[in-house]
Formats: sequence, structure tokens, C-alpha cells
Amino acid sequence: GRQCYDLLVIGGGSGGLACAKEAAQLGKKVAVVDYVEPSPRGTRWGLGGTCVNVGCIPKKLMHQAALLGGMIRDAPHYGWGVAQAPHSWATLADAVQNHVKSLNWGHRVQLQDRKVKYFNVKASFVDTHTVCGVSKGGEETLLSAEHIVIATGGRPRYPTHIEGALEYGITSDDLFWLKESPGKTLVVGASYVALECAGLLTGLGLDTTVMIRSVPLRAFDQQMASLVTEHMAGHGTRILRGCAPEKVEKLPGQQLRVTWVDLTSDRKDAGTFDTVLWAIGRVPETASLNLEKAGVHTNPVTGKILVDAQEATSVPHIYAIGDVAEGRPELTPTAIMAGRLLAQRLSGRTSDLMDYSSVPTTVFTPLEYGCVGLSEEAAVARHGEEHVEVYHAFYKPLEFTVPQRDASQCYIKMVCLREPPQLVLGLHFLGPNAGEVIQGFALGIKCGASYQQLMRTVGIHPTCAEEVAKLRISKRSGLDPTVTGCG
Amino acid sequence: GRQCYDLLVIGGGSGGLACAKEAAQLGKKVAVVDYVEPSPRGTRWGLGGTCVNVGCIPKKLMHQAALLGGMIRDAPHYGWGVAQAPHSWATLADAVQNHVKSLNWGHRVQLQDRKVKYFNVKASFVDTHTVCGVSKGGEETLLSAEHIVIATGGRPRYPTHIEGALEYGITSDDLFWLKESPGKTLVVGASYVALECAGLLTGLGLDTTVMIRSVPLRAFDQQMASLVTEHMAGHGTRILRGCAPEKVEKLPGQQLRVTWVDLTSDRKDAGTFDTVLWAIGRVPETASLNLEKAGVHTNPVTGKILVDAQEATSVPHIYAIGDVAEGRPELTPTAIMAGRLLAQRLSGRTSDLMDYSSVPTTVFTPLEYGCVGLSEEAAVARHGEEHVEVYHAFYKPLEFTVPQRDASQCYIKMVCLREPPQLVLGLHFLGPNAGEVIQGFALGIKCGASYQQLMRTVGIHPTCAEEVAKLRISKRSGLDPTVTGCG
Repeated sequence: GRQCYDLLVIGGGSGGLACAKEAAQLGKKVAVVDYVEPSPRGTRWGLGGTCVNVGCIPKKLMHQAALLGGMIRDAPHYGWGVAQAPHSWATLADAVQNHVKSLNWGHRVQLQDRKVKYFNVKASFVDTHTVCGVSKGGEETLLSAEHIVIATGGRPRYPTHIEGALEYGITSDDLFWLKESPGKTLVVGASYVALECAGLLTGLGLDTTVMIRSVPLRAFDQQMASLVTEHMAGHGTRILRGCAPEKVEKLPGQQLRVTWVDLTSDRKDAGTFDTVLWAIGRVPETASLNLEKAGVHTNPVTGKILVDAQEATSVPHIYAIGDVAEGRPELTPTAIMAGRLLAQRLSGRTSDLMDYSSVPTTVFTPLEYGCVGLSEEAAVARHGEEHVEVYHAFYKPLEFTVPQRDASQCYIKMVCLREPPQLVLGLHFLGPNAGEVIQGFALGIKCGASYQQLMRTVGIHPTCAEEVAKLRISKRSGLDPTVTGCG
Repeated sequence: GRQCYDLLVIGGGSGGLACAKEAAQLGKKVAVVDYVEPSPRGTRWGLGGTCVNVGCIPKKLMHQAALLGGMIRDAPHYGWGVAQAPHSWATLADAVQNHVKSLNWGHRVQLQDRKVKYFNVKASFVDTHTVCGVSKGGEETLLSAEHIVIATGGRPRYPTHIEGALEYGITSDDLFWLKESPGKTLVVGASYVALECAGLLTGLGLDTTVMIRSVPLRAFDQQMASLVTEHMAGHGTRILRGCAPEKVEKLPGQQLRVTWVDLTSDRKDAGTFDTVLWAIGRVPETASLNLEKAGVHTNPVTGKILVDAQEATSVPHIYAIGDVAEGRPELTPTAIMAGRLLAQRLSGRTSDLMDYSSVPTTVFTPLEYGCVGLSEEAAVARHGEEHVEVYHAFYKPLEFTVPQRDASQCYIKMVCLREPPQLVLGLHFLGPNAGEVIQGFALGIKCGASYQQLMRTVGIHPTCAEEVAKLRISKRSGLDPTVTGCG
């Protein structure tokens, strides 16, 4: 039999679940289909999508574990008689996995509570209003809906042209579900995923190397990106720049031998690792959707689904949100907000569109990098150098003083229009708790904050965030932005 | 001989130094006089005022030390094989004191760099343009200036009517300079100073009691204040409500016996402590200034100097900024901004007045409480209950999950006007890194943020700050604001 719904959501990740729950709450009859294809290593997980299972949540918890390693090193300076002890991956992984499983369960309960029908099936289009769902056991279900939302997200990309890459490598789909420590690890990639994984592994005491072909954090402000990698290099992560892997071989003792080429010298080099982690990008999850059957168009280069400002695809009643949609930031909160607004529009409750401008984000490297709005490069490109004023400062977190932590990379940059009142275009913060710091400023920028208004905002002392309200040195002035110690 | 200046600043604390440095940079001939009267216990310190020496800075460092104690308890859950060890007060105090001394030195150097003349003398007015400074050795200097700024701040108040209070008690002027652990401590007071001191002592493993006569954190939102003390009570601080101390006696073994009365039952009780810390308020430091000689008026009740919007006292060329001035928030960043703006006005560089509205602040109790703008009570009093909408949520910081920390008091409240677009009147955040979270929102509120704009601000996942952008439940709705786990 065929089941009919007002709304069918394909993909039970952040965006899909938000959309489904909102629509159900607004009175729609809603179904969600979700199916996790195991990773090439065989890792599988439950409801909730990338963020919950193999992204933000386990990443942040392992990042927190890594930060705790630094806290334990600080503690004796603050009077605590503790000695650094080795780290147990198994304990951490177990705790993280248990938390993720509780979230999987929570999502199931939430769908039930809101009367959203959930199918653990793999979906493919039959026609523009119908999807065929195939369960693990091969059972088929036909699901029809007035509106269909595609929210299948993406998966890590494997460099299948590299010998041994698929056979011996893992990705972020596997890392957080490993039962045993990955040991000495090579992370390949320049994305924030690569740097975050390498940073947390280093922080947990593992011998960690990142191999970057060209430019790290390409989509971000490049001065900030340089400081991020400089900090990592100064805190134990080995960074190989301008290198490209060529081959992965398994040695008799289970270790992996990686051969790479240094692209500058064209010389080959090799190293031995316990784990090779690919973090070279992600591919949208559309392969099995049979999009052609519905007439949903994708970008042939990126493979992502083309959408308009309404999130509609080339088929007006089929929508795409989140990572699978072309041109959208690959971020959980944008997918959630987009999904919720879409549900509200579909229910006639609003005509508001998702505003994808000035979306704040944070890279959880060992020194966190939070930002909102334009990078310095983007501001200059858009407005011209003569119309842009950049205020900046190096600063020292108070907490760094007692343990004499190095604060060389603690840096803040605010990009403004030059003409008074100097509208804020972008804010970049490198330091502890960057996400906590940036969030409120994102509201400020949403409200059209100017540099003049910032200068009238009283600081909260002593915090790192107050340093933003104390930015008084412009790059143009040529004055020294390094920390002066006080006042 | 008499020395003449364009500007004479009395008091080398946050406000005075900021004003002096700014004026000097703008070309004025400036002198600062500063003299620290030792506390009744004999504690003395260097240049920089309360914040640097006996306030924000040592407090935050000891608070950080206390937080690290919690981190060490978390660490095994995150895989670190560490055991909790006892805390060495001496090590912490030494580190904190060394940092403070480096700041004292830094302030001296900054004054020199900016050609501000510094006198370590006790100042008293001779006439409306002249001050007599007396050095420790009794030497007198006459200093005249066109403009005089009084920025002498305040000192902790002793309950001199209580027998043994002055003789055996200490205050926050002494706590951070103790060479030995204060041991079992009774903190008397309901101010944020009282709660912060009690919280950090508890966190360092000391048996700590707070005795509160009536209402804790009276100037703050009372629901938030209740949650702050509830959290402290749940985490090891003994709280005695509705009690007033009557007597402090020294026992043969150096311990202190405190007798108090329970004001509800009128019954007496007593306890033995190693240290009694008075944190019952502060008095403005004006006693030795000889203000009458200059004709500077004070509020007879508070003792504070009466000022206008220009910071001018009853004598037009004499100003008062910071804690010594009537009606000003007792906060370092407001004193600094007020001092800097005053210097700019005196130099004819601006006519801008200090804006004392919507000043953000944070109470560094074990669970930090940050706020900006109106409390719920104040909003209702000002606008009427029917015109106020309060959004609120309990939330669970992700970092709390793995170590199964109790998040019962992690709570956010946003006070808005009810009419669309629902202007934000106040924000109250109870949780980790509250100061870092609130700072940016203070800019938003400065920019006239509305609840509608907040709802269009994308969150940064996973952070605690994003919970602010997810506030969807109004108190009026009666819906349950407790944490739902996800999404």
C-alpha cells in the first residue's frame, strides 16, 4: 500500500528533523525517512544525522577532552597537586558514544511525541510526488506527499584515485566511533574538519600530522587561518604544507606506510602511521535518490541540489535544505533554521525566507576561531581597500598568565566600513571560548552594529570578550597591535 | 614649591589611570596621586586600585583555580587518569600576587611612557585648585591644577558595631594577599563580593559558610539571584539565610568563635571558624580628602560625591568618576570609559557623555551569572506586567553531559517589550563563561536589538551562547522551560 502525507522529509539530520517537527506542530501530516549507509569501514549510527553522530557533538566532546588535558597541565600552577596522566581513548569514546546514543533515542522520542511517522528506509524517487523506501531487510514502502524536502546532507569524500586510500583510510564518519585509540595519525586535508580532528588528537596526546595540499581554511579569513595553523604547529601538531599523498600501504605489523610528494620540490617522502584520516571535503548524499526520476536538478560540478530563495528545487513542490543544497553553509544551525522556516511557509504561517547572510561559526581547533560576517579579503573585494577599516589586537587571556601559557595567537580583528559610523562587516576572534564570544556579536551585526556603537559598549571585566570592545588600533594606523599588559 | 598641572587625578585605580593617560595623550600636563592606606589587617599593595590589587584580577584568577578543581573532577570521565589532589593555597596566592605585582609595575611604566607624573602621596584639598600630598615619610607636596578628578574608589566596610569584627575579621582587601590558607571560613554578606569569595573558597576545597542577613544580590534579578545561591548551596557552600552576626571572639587555639542570631526565630547560634570575612558593602574613600575645603558635596547617606552627567561635582572644575561617585555602577570598565571620555571632553576632543545605561556585568560565582539591561522586576516596574514578555529556558551545557554534571541552575532569561518587534530590555545568563557570552549581546542591546532580530540570528553549535538564540518559550505561555535534550 501507498502511504500519503502532507510532507515527506528525506533525511533525519538537523535540517530534516527540524523541518518535520515544525510542520507536524503546525498541523501537517509528516513522515521522515532516514537511512545511514555504513561507512566503508563499516561504521553505522542512529537517527540525527552528521551533527549528532559524526560531527559537531562527538567532535566538541573530544575537543573538550583535549582542552581538559591543557587544564590539567595548568592546574599545578594554580595550586592543584595533580600529575599529568595518560589518556584512555576507550573511556572517552565510550562516554561520547553513550551520549550520542542518548541523543539518537531523544530524536526518536521527539518524532513520536510530535506524531511524525519515522521510517528507517533508504529513499529513492519514483515520481515527483512519490518515494520508494527500502528497508535493511529489502522491504519496500511507497510514500507519497504533497511536498517533499530533501535533507540528506553529505558524507566525507575519499580520494579513490589514491592507492590504498579507501582500503586503509578512515574518515570523520569513523573516528568518533573507534573503540581503540587511532594511535599515530595522519590527517589529510585543509578543511576545518581536518584541523579540528588533528587538534583534538594532538590534545589527547597522540602523535598527529596534518598534510595540507594548498591553503588551510580556504573559505575563512586567511590571516586568521594562518594563526590557527601557527598555533597548532606550536602546540604539537606536525603540519606538512604543500604535500599530496600518493599511496597507502599496509605494513606487516598492521601499520600504514604513506607515500607523499612535496609539491614544491617534487620530492617524495614517506611515513608510517597507525591511522590515516581523510578530511578532504564532503560529497552531497544524492546518489541513491534517483533525482532524475523526479526531475530535480543538481550542479554537475558539486553534485549539490540547485535551490532558490524559497529552498525549492527545479521541481516547485520539492525542496532541499542543509548540506545537500547548493550554496548553503554546511552548518547545523542554518539547516535547522532553514528547515523550520520552510515548514512555516509550507503551513502558511509566514512568508519569511531564511537569511543566509552573516552566519556566525566557530572552528573548534585547540585555540578556537570564531567569526561572523566578511573576512578582510572579502570586505576589500566587495568595498575596495580605501573603504575598509580593520581594527585589531593581540591580547592575553587572564587565565593564561598564571600558567604562563603562550598567547601569541590570541588575536581579534574587526572589519568595518571606513566611513562613519563605520558599519561592522565582520568579526574574527581567535582564543578560548570563541563560540561563546561570537554569538552575541552576531546579534549585534544583525542589528547593524557600527564601530561607534561598539566603542560605547562597556566591557565585562575580566573576560576575553571585552577585548573586542577595546579594539582601538586600526591596521591603517600602522600602530603595534600587540598586547600592552593592562588597561 | 608648588607644582602646576592641567589635570590632577586623585586615585590611581582603573578610572583615574585611564583618565590621566588619555588626557596626557591628548597633550595635557597630568599628575596622578595615589596612596594605599593599609587595611586594618595591615595588607598593602601597589598602583592600580581595587580591580588590579584586591578585586577583579586576583578574584578571577582564584575563581579560575576553583573552576580547575571541577575540571580535574571531570577529567576521568573524559578519559584522563588523574586523581583529585589537595590544593595549595600558598602556591596559588604566590602566583596571583606575582601577577598583580607585574600589573602594578606595568601601570607605573605606562604612566612614565605617557609622561604622567606619579606621586605616591595621600591627598587632601587645600583649596578648590590645590591639593596637599603627604608621603609615607611625612613630606608634603603642593599640587595645583586647572582640573581635578577624584577617583579614589572605595574600601570594604567593617561592621564596627560588632564586637571583635575589626579586631579579628578580614575583608576582600586581605583575602587575596593571605600567604596561608584562610581555612574554614565564614563570609558575611549578601553582595556579589560575598558570593564570589565564598564560591571560590568552596571550590578550592575549603569549608565555607556564607551568612546572609536578608536578600542576596539585591541589585540583580531576583530569580537569577535565587538560582545562583541554590547552585552554591548544592555545591558545597553552606548558606545561612536570615542570620546576623553578633560577636567574634578569639579562642585559645587561634580559631574564631562567631555568635549570630537567627532573625526569624530570634534564636542564637554559634560556630567556629579560622577566618571571618566581611563582605557587607563598601564605603567611598573620601575621609582624608578634606572635601569641605574645596566645597565638594557628598550624599550624606552614602558618603559618595554628587556628580552630574559631565561627571562634575558641585565645584565645576572638580570631577568624580568611578566607585566614589554617587549613582555610578561600581565596575572597572565603566570607570575606565567614564575617565577616558572625561579626559576627551576636558581636551575639547568630544562632547560625548558617558552612557551608564545597559552596562553589562558578570558575577563570577561557581556558576557564573552575566547580565545586561533590566531585571524582570525592573522591566515590570517600568513598563507594566502586561507590556513585558519574558522568554526563558533551562539548558544543559554539552560539556556537562559526559561527567554528568548537574545543570539544574543553567538558565537563561530574556526580558522584552511585548509589542512587536519586542525590543530586548534585559538578558540574564547563568552558566559557564557567562561573561564571554553576555559581552556581544550587550552590543546587540546597544544597537536596539529586538526579539525578532534575535530569532533571525543563527546559532553557533555547539555552544551555550546559542541557547540565547533558541529562546522560544515565554513565561506567559506557561509552557515548560526545562531542557528537552536536543534540537
